[in-house]
Amino acid sequence: MQNPVPFFTHSLTALSNILVKAEAHAEAKKIKPEVIPQLRLIADMLPLWRQVTIACDHAKGAAARLAGLEVPAFADTETTLAELRDRISRTIAYLATIPADAFDAADARTIAIKAGSHERSFGAVQYYFGYALPNFYFHMATAHGILRANGVDVGKADFLGA
Amino acid sequence: MQNPVPFFTHSLTALSNILVKAEAHAEAKKIKPEVIPQLRLIADMLPLWRQVTIACDHAKGAAARLAGLEVPAFADTETTLAELRDRISRTIAYLATIPADAFDAADARTIAIKAGSHERSFGAVQYYFGYALPNFYFHMATAHGILRANGVDVGKADFLGA
Repeated sequence: MQNPVPFFTHSLTALSNILVKAEAHAEAKKIKPEVIPQLRLIADMLPLWRQVTIACDHAKGAAARLAGLEVPAFADTETTLAELRDRISRTIAYLATIPADAFDAADARTIAIKAGSHERSFGAVQYYFGYALPNFYFHMATAHGILRANGVDVGKADFLGA
Repeated sequence: MQNPVPFFTHSLTALSNILVKAEAHAEAKKIKPEVIPQLRLIADMLPLWRQVTIACDHAKGAAARLAGLEVPAFADTETTLAELRDRISRTIAYLATIPADAFDAADARTIAIKAGSHERSFGAVQYYFGYALPNFYFHMATAHGILRANGVDVGKADFLGA
């Protein structure tokens, strides 16, 4: 299987740069540091900070599982954009510890995941293309959409890191 | 390269089912058919209908280019959710015409794309993982976010088609 680390790293770096723009927006508008991470598109939806941490966790989880490694647990305690950028940095640093050849045998793996009480098992290809990537980009794009809807000057070029 | 058609088809089917929920919402609230396709998260952003057609075009474009085929052009004329679902159906029908073994030689291809006046050239792997997939899921998730923010009863399970 193609090593997913460079692509996750690129997209997470783009997400961190989007949060830098959100920090500049907060400073310009004198918005307290804990306000923007709590923004949502609608009340019954996860706030920005959870969109960011879940995106990080899909990248970390997918890379670890496809490489046959234990998924490290990161606590969900972030309350500011600076802390969220640190979470992204720690995720990228973890991804960098996985050797590129760890994915050579990935295609043959069976991946079991728990989402709440729900357990699922996939072949690696189905897991990566049908679950991990759509989930990762769902939370990346929803984080972007929350900031976009709230007037932060971000767009698709920021999302793509182009 | 992994055949991308089953994953694009699965996600586009999920997007079509999300639009079915939007149609039910419009009917329940007596919203005219042309209103929901024009919704945006913020004024200087593309409306729902363009998010859907661009998602379709990234799936169609990626599959065609990776298979070494000419990308068919579909006109952007949709004004209702029913027409958008038809656009998705036509995209899925096109994807189904590409034989699975057309992707066997994809890794070695160079992909050139035009975005406005801007031309870019990529290796196929970089194109697929670094451009086509993030773009496809960006527009999928932004379409979902627009509907979610406007009170349509959709969520990540609908997006994943789980």
